[in-house]
Amino acid sequence: MELTLIKQLYRETEKFADKNVKISGWVRTVRDSKTFGFIEVNDGSFFKNVQIVFEDSLENFKEMTRLPISTTLAVEGTVVLTPESKQPFEIKATKLTVEGTSSSDYPLQKKRHTLEYLRTIAHLRPRSNTFSAVFRVRSLAAYAVHKFFNENGFVYVNTPIITGSDCEGAGEMFRITTLDMHNVPKTEEGNIDFSQDFFGRETNLTVSGQLSAETLALAFRNVYTFGPTFRAENSNTARHAAEFWMIEPEMAFAELKDYMDVAEALVKYIIKYVRENAPEEMEFFNSFVDKGLFTRLDNVANSDFGRITYTEAVDILQKSGHEFQYPVEWGIDLQTEHERYLTEKVFNKPIFVTDYPKDIKAFYMRVNEDGKTVAAADLLVPGVGEIVGGSQREERLDVLEKRIEEMGLNKKDYWWYLELRKYGETKHSGFGLGFERILMYLTGMSNIRDVIPFPRTTGSAEF
Amino acid sequence: MELTLIKQLYRETEKFADKNVKISGWVRTVRDSKTFGFIEVNDGSFFKNVQIVFEDSLENFKEMTRLPISTTLAVEGTVVLTPESKQPFEIKATKLTVEGTSSSDYPLQKKRHTLEYLRTIAHLRPRSNTFSAVFRVRSLAAYAVHKFFNENGFVYVNTPIITGSDCEGAGEMFRITTLDMHNVPKTEEGNIDFSQDFFGRETNLTVSGQLSAETLALAFRNVYTFGPTFRAENSNTARHAAEFWMIEPEMAFAELKDYMDVAEALVKYIIKYVRENAPEEMEFFNSFVDKGLFTRLDNVANSDFGRITYTEAVDILQKSGHEFQYPVEWGIDLQTEHERYLTEKVFNKPIFVTDYPKDIKAFYMRVNEDGKTVAAADLLVPGVGEIVGGSQREERLDVLEKRIEEMGLNKKDYWWYLELRKYGETKHSGFGLGFERILMYLTGMSNIRDVIPFPRTTGSAEF
Repeated sequence: MELTLIKQLYRETEKFADKNVKISGWVRTVRDSKTFGFIEVNDGSFFKNVQIVFEDSLENFKEMTRLPISTTLAVEGTVVLTPESKQPFEIKATKLTVEGTSSSDYPLQKKRHTLEYLRTIAHLRPRSNTFSAVFRVRSLAAYAVHKFFNENGFVYVNTPIITGSDCEGAGEMFRITTLDMHNVPKTEEGNIDFSQDFFGRETNLTVSGQLSAETLALAFRNVYTFGPTFRAENSNTARHAAEFWMIEPEMAFAELKDYMDVAEALVKYIIKYVRENAPEEMEFFNSFVDKGLFTRLDNVANSDFGRITYTEAVDILQKSGHEFQYPVEWGIDLQTEHERYLTEKVFNKPIFVTDYPKDIKAFYMRVNEDGKTVAAADLLVPGVGEIVGGSQREERLDVLEKRIEEMGLNKKDYWWYLELRKYGETKHSGFGLGFERILMYLTGMSNIRDVIPFPRTTGSAEF
Repeated sequence: MELTLIKQLYRETEKFADKNVKISGWVRTVRDSKTFGFIEVNDGSFFKNVQIVFEDSLENFKEMTRLPISTTLAVEGTVVLTPESKQPFEIKATKLTVEGTSSSDYPLQKKRHTLEYLRTIAHLRPRSNTFSAVFRVRSLAAYAVHKFFNENGFVYVNTPIITGSDCEGAGEMFRITTLDMHNVPKTEEGNIDFSQDFFGRETNLTVSGQLSAETLALAFRNVYTFGPTFRAENSNTARHAAEFWMIEPEMAFAELKDYMDVAEALVKYIIKYVRENAPEEMEFFNSFVDKGLFTRLDNVANSDFGRITYTEAVDILQKSGHEFQYPVEWGIDLQTEHERYLTEKVFNKPIFVTDYPKDIKAFYMRVNEDGKTVAAADLLVPGVGEIVGGSQREERLDVLEKRIEEMGLNKKDYWWYLELRKYGETKHSGFGLGFERILMYLTGMSNIRDVIPFPRTTGSAEF
């Protein structure tokens, strides 16, 4: 008999009414009365379990009422609609067969576990309701990203993970090497002899695909990356991981305004796609993880995002009368407290803050006419703060070279990046969206470790 | 006036007939007669260029006939249908404006360049026809992969890039470290003190996401990874890169046969999707890169893949009378010459070779009843040889433990992998498809360096 998936049973319940089916899955709970047994089974195809009911007429009744959690079970039986109860249907079993055993010391017993404990069993936690929902939503959100860009004519590009330069300038990097660390080869001058390393030079893990993506945007107009990036920062916070996935679109013939339009459309698209395609999982988050979730997400999906300049933002904050831990004056980098005040108290919706002082922003951002600010914009959302950062890129060769010098960087390291401005300079813009940041926003999960299957953070690379 | 994309002009030509449009793009070629100028422009939205025609009545006629290649040009003019010529339409320009200059030393002049030369200008080569086609197809093939798995209920999982173990056993690894290599800290015993490293332990770049993906398959039934993997092998060949993308599905409640069904469907799906969605690019490859391409791809897309056992394959090879460089006997690992002979000369279609001797396969492959072979299968395709490798995974705890010991591995390193067999063991299968391998197959490009935007190979991590 062919296997039926639990997802099919839930999606086409009527079709299966009173039909015989066979499913294979894992035991989630077991209980019994004297003459009845009840087993909840999950087969991985769907967030919800199916309730199996069986009678003591079953020859292995006793054994079945004592199955350890996570036993692999084959169930044959009849689908019975139960409109009066919580589940829309159950399966009345005619045959139950153990396909794979489990053990009574199974670490994920039916009780409340802390998220901290569940991280220590990262190989098993996807079997819990919370992580089943988180990683299903992660998958759907990733698909939404690809679908959005595909529908809008963007070319997906894979920029390199291993970089031969440290000119990305976005943070501390991990070194990659095959040199013998017991006996590191040195040059005559006493430097490390990277010419003997695998790539014949010093290499690191990428912190951003942006500079590479720009080369492709100047060929394909609209491109995006979606891949892992790395930061070797010693930040042991709930929002930082050493390894995380980033979405980095780059668009030629696009100004700052165009980037903001695309970022706004993307964020709304992801929210709507996940709400539509993971209703059960999202209901779970809204009920058990973050009771304000739907209100918050719907507010984002249905608002026109606000747009104010940094100068206006500073003015609003200064006149607010609110006492901030970090005092506000023109020229400072906005802190999370400022960002959240703006988006939560002043606007109560997502806002882009634009045109930051050039001194607090990266060298590749386009200098505005005023000579003091750059065409950058950060998207701030209620409940989190910054979720997207982006800018128009400096396309003028002379201005860019000057900025590189001002920042104390070496022009030679950027030869190919500069050549993009020499051969067909084009106004262009791009942004970065941290995938885990948007996942935390979508699910209400408050620690980045809980939206990554096997998180890598300072001092921790288990599994 | 709003910009029109060249893609729109090609896809909805009739709609634009005799209409005024504005496009912005880059100059690909320039030529002129005394009274007419012709510029081919590409705006990145489409593989093909648009021909711009302009008359000497244009005030900047002279300047326009001398534009360097890759100048950024804004064109206003009328779309004129040209059914009698090669292109279906051209734009009769009323206004041409230089938006960004280029230089006469532009390295990608209109002439034939070698692929080797183009690798030295990897930041510009996406602007050439060949690489424009390659990277568009790369993007579409990636989308096809996600679409296929989404439609089939697979959960996309991101397995870690940084691994804390070297137990994947699939090849040599790159070390990741933040230790000071000038002064590597040592323990009292003289070992490297990895407790001082970023993760407090030795870490490497992943060579495969399989083992991690198995943990997720045993929660979600059907999952797949699609991400970068790394091999620090000193193989300076046309088929090996140090950094490449892999697709690794894992399926619970699936036997070897089920893996083969899914792999066959996936390969056919990718081919059909790309043929349908990149007709211009594929036509280009078939005409200029590999004249047998369509024949080969259609043969794959329309064949029922063959399935023979390793033992049968050895028998066929031995009886073939063909003289191989590596002699064939039961127990050897099949070489490319054997694989290609089978798929090209004997079957002339893709074939799965199944049930290899266990001694030449990995520890996690399921041991068959005969005790000598494992439930593994490689997919061989004409023109390339192996393109997919996979197996049923050993789900029996005692057999798996024995295999780990036999292979001289340490059970402790596999504690979490073994626990998957302790808590709800389930038959399951999976496979790996090298993304660049299938891209080479799809495009006819014969060097892996030419299907990766910025390739990383022994001795080379430029850009």
